[in-house]
Amino acid sequence: MTSRTDSGSRRAQVVGIGLIGGSIGMALRAGGWHVTGVDRDAVRVEKGVALGALDASGFDEDAAIMFVATPVGAVAEVVAQCLGRGSGVVTDVGSAKHAIVSAVPDGRFVGGHPMAGSEQEGVEGARPELFEGSVWVLTPVEGTDPGAHALVRSVVASLGAEVMELSPQRHDALVAMVSHVPHLTAASLMGLAAEGAEEHRALLRLAAGGFRDMTRIAAGHPGIWPDICVENRDAIVDVLRRLEEELAHTRSLVERGDRAGVLDILERARAARVNLPARVARTSEMAEVRIPVPDRPGVLAEVTTLASELGVDIADLEIAHSAEGDAGVLILVIEGESIDRLRDALAARGYHASMRSLA
Amino acid sequence: MTSRTDSGSRRAQVVGIGLIGGSIGMALRAGGWHVTGVDRDAVRVEKGVALGALDASGFDEDAAIMFVATPVGAVAEVVAQCLGRGSGVVTDVGSAKHAIVSAVPDGRFVGGHPMAGSEQEGVEGARPELFEGSVWVLTPVEGTDPGAHALVRSVVASLGAEVMELSPQRHDALVAMVSHVPHLTAASLMGLAAEGAEEHRALLRLAAGGFRDMTRIAAGHPGIWPDICVENRDAIVDVLRRLEEELAHTRSLVERGDRAGVLDILERARAARVNLPARVARTSEMAEVRIPVPDRPGVLAEVTTLASELGVDIADLEIAHSAEGDAGVLILVIEGESIDRLRDALAARGYHASMRSLA
Repeated sequence: MTSRTDSGSRRAQVVGIGLIGGSIGMALRAGGWHVTGVDRDAVRVEKGVALGALDASGFDEDAAIMFVATPVGAVAEVVAQCLGRGSGVVTDVGSAKHAIVSAVPDGRFVGGHPMAGSEQEGVEGARPELFEGSVWVLTPVEGTDPGAHALVRSVVASLGAEVMELSPQRHDALVAMVSHVPHLTAASLMGLAAEGAEEHRALLRLAAGGFRDMTRIAAGHPGIWPDICVENRDAIVDVLRRLEEELAHTRSLVERGDRAGVLDILERARAARVNLPARVARTSEMAEVRIPVPDRPGVLAEVTTLASELGVDIADLEIAHSAEGDAGVLILVIEGESIDRLRDALAARGYHASMRSLA
Repeated sequence: MTSRTDSGSRRAQVVGIGLIGGSIGMALRAGGWHVTGVDRDAVRVEKGVALGALDASGFDEDAAIMFVATPVGAVAEVVAQCLGRGSGVVTDVGSAKHAIVSAVPDGRFVGGHPMAGSEQEGVEGARPELFEGSVWVLTPVEGTDPGAHALVRSVVASLGAEVMELSPQRHDALVAMVSHVPHLTAASLMGLAAEGAEEHRALLRLAAGGFRDMTRIAAGHPGIWPDICVENRDAIVDVLRRLEEELAHTRSLVERGDRAGVLDILERARAARVNLPARVARTSEMAEVRIPVPDRPGVLAEVTTLASELGVDIADLEIAHSAEGDAGVLILVIEGESIDRLRDALAARGYHASMRSLA
């Protein structure tokens, strides 16, 4: 099971061969690393080798860097095992950090969390470019060995990710806010709406774009959430409590008919949302293009083909529905320098697009 | 200001010439109606005439049907005025119904609410096909004149909308659930995330697809919400309270590490969300096509063009982002009968699409 070489400098170990572990293996191999992989389930390792995510099956004690990509509930234990068996640096990809980092106070361990994922699960969905342009959080602490930190940082950056350093607690609070609590809230809203079968039928007919947008993440795989809720319990509980307070405050404004108060909440939220970039990490200046979309076939094809023909790279695309009804605006995010080209071409075809810079 | 004719049978009045009022005017005119319009702001009426939403400016006392499309806070008063000045049937488009319907207990008034809208505001965004395929709720009550109800029903259906009859209270409860509370919740989440400027910068970098989907509606125009919150106060307060309870329940499960409880909530929500059709009203059987989208330019154009070439009408399109990261799956909703054609063509081009019926 063990492979040995004289030098571990370009040898890596991955533990847990799923979507993330498999993608790390592929990206490392593309960068010239020799990657050994292990998983509780031997079939996943076989698949990983077959799909080109791994060079070999087993545990490479001489690996310079070991990635722990198991379910978050198992991370601390597996990190400790890796530190015991190998001599290299260990990092992980768990979506909660404080509990893990506190459980393994070893200078050779650097906590990590790539903010990348996919709707797909398993090594079958792995791809080497998964981390390109995404944010990868590292959570070094006081006792972290600077050399270990520097190595993890440079390897992660070499996978195409943008490294962001945060304390474990700060990471957990932020992720609870932007990922965990929104997910639980979407599920709560959906659950509330689904109460009672008869009610559900009517709701289905009325639920339009806004509601669908709000609850979309509730369609994701539930399996990972019990672990996340245990590992990031404190931060999730804190943010949930604050959201409940915020909703209770909003309710009291509605209850006493405080128009100005309601307007203030919505205006502040709008300003914050409008400033939320449509895509996370991008070095060049991006621009947002909004095109009202008439409800006829072919418009999407026409606009996206036009962009393609003009060499305009669409970094992101969404259809913003109104709160009620299905009418929409097609929102494209493109490189700022492409604005003029696309505007002229759209105008020539009769589209009334509005543009703004996201700089 | 007043135009008179012998017969009001194909004469309609619109009060409030914005997006909805203007679109009603255009759709009525396309159906052969003579439409007169009035607004507190004379400029809007001028625009309405110029854009083809209205035949004439003023108040047509002989109109067979009068549409009140003012902001919801003014509806009850304007409905009463219309009932006093004209002899025809009156309906409205306000997004809360119980307060309005109770305030105007007249057999000639039938409350209504088209579940159609647009990101755009004002008569400039009006278009005659706005209501095609959308749900238009009518809220007749015990004292409603059957003839008035039948007329409103047939006119609304002639605009292409699917009529759905609900009691005013039921309408208000459902709309609070699928529209008003989701909007307030998105605003609360966004507001919470935006607290503190320094926090905001880090959040912006971490906020990925799921959070953006959740908070998208918070970017909508805040101006209409104070009115809605006043008019639909009771239902909104009730649903907000239930959501707070649901979140508190979820929080208690997280607090005591109840994995099974958390999983149960998420699994029920997922089942309900997966059954939520991507589009509201559609008579034929629809199917959902999910295509993993690699992050390279041209894929959207290729897929949408392919559908276009095959004559496959895309009823809806969305990109589902994972909770973390920007990877996505392109989701198309198409007619069920087109499934085989599209599947074969996609497979021939190397796309691994999965399909399911929405029947």
